[in-house]
Amino acid sequence: MHHDPADMSVKEIYQLLVQLVVPRPIAWVSSISNDGVTNLAPYSFFNAVGANPPTLMFCPVNRRDGTFKDSLNNILENSEFVVSVVSHDLGDEMNQTAAEFDKEISEFEAVGIASTPSSCVKPPRVAQSLAQFECRLNRVIHLAPGPAGANIVIGDIVQFHVADELISPAGKIDQERLDAIGRMGGASYTRTTDRFELTRKNSGS
Amino acid sequence: MHHDPADMSVKEIYQLLVQLVVPRPIAWVSSISNDGVTNLAPYSFFNAVGANPPTLMFCPVNRRDGTFKDSLNNILENSEFVVSVVSHDLGDEMNQTAAEFDKEISEFEAVGIASTPSSCVKPPRVAQSLAQFECRLNRVIHLAPGPAGANIVIGDIVQFHVADELISPAGKIDQERLDAIGRMGGASYTRTTDRFELTRKNSGS
Repeated sequence: MHHDPADMSVKEIYQLLVQLVVPRPIAWVSSISNDGVTNLAPYSFFNAVGANPPTLMFCPVNRRDGTFKDSLNNILENSEFVVSVVSHDLGDEMNQTAAEFDKEISEFEAVGIASTPSSCVKPPRVAQSLAQFECRLNRVIHLAPGPAGANIVIGDIVQFHVADELISPAGKIDQERLDAIGRMGGASYTRTTDRFELTRKNSGS
Repeated sequence: MHHDPADMSVKEIYQLLVQLVVPRPIAWVSSISNDGVTNLAPYSFFNAVGANPPTLMFCPVNRRDGTFKDSLNNILENSEFVVSVVSHDLGDEMNQTAAEFDKEISEFEAVGIASTPSSCVKPPRVAQSLAQFECRLNRVIHLAPGPAGANIVIGDIVQFHVADELISPAGKIDQERLDAIGRMGGASYTRTTDRFELTRKNSGS
């Protein structure tokens, strides 16, 4: 099947993307409004960007009415956010924070998720998450205005937090302990338990 | 453990990112130089960006000597590329294209990967891949020059290709058939076989 996106609805395009670009890592993004209300929401159009500078990105899509989501509004207000990594045992709580709450309501309180202060930025971290990245806004790219319009938030990482229990004797991250989950299409997720190795001669191209 | 990236080497930051931002989808990116040499290379700092406009992104990091990789040079020359999805049975071939080849050498030929023409752009697709996205450059963002400097390539999707065998009777993508793999740290990959569902009341935040 060949599809010209010009002949497809935004919903049809979205459905293809979320089922074909898999597995996606999950950013559990905390932010805070200038009124002091914290926000916590998951995003799977997310990845690392690079180590020089230390950067990551995630893509908060506009709501159906064309307005920005609270995460993006908060970040535009004060340029700070935190990405907490989602282990399998936090999946239900993560999923509950995907619901639409009024902007006066903190998902930390509404869902009952413990927070812990960050070192360099105001938004708190998810206390039970085993790794977090504190970020300051590098830039936002608005690709389209209006309903479902795409935005890219690029963050400079200003602090890494890694739980001691994640560090193996060899200094590597213990992936069994991290037990990260990835997003597939619809309500489907994948665990990272079915791993294998492919060794490389050298990298780059 | 708390790490200030200002106290870390680029390599240390990279190692943390690739082990903590997991699982990452894999873009098998084909491009072509203005001299007509095709290039094929995998990138896991990759994701969908949104459906309005239909966009995806990947991040080709500069080589150790500060030069751009061939993929980025080609895309800067003619603004076209294709992302092919990597199923488990294509893992070895994908991994071989991660090696450093001279820019006069096509990874399609060197590794022995069959290509098939694209509909709207010059770079070919991976014939055995079950889904591909033909893209035209939306923009490139250069975050830092020099060794390991990060770049973000944002592509407008101009054509989707989906193998008929991937479409289930209900019109969804058959994830068992797609059998996509994700990248973890180092030489480690994950299959998407260990799936589960988390149902949502409503989306957004």
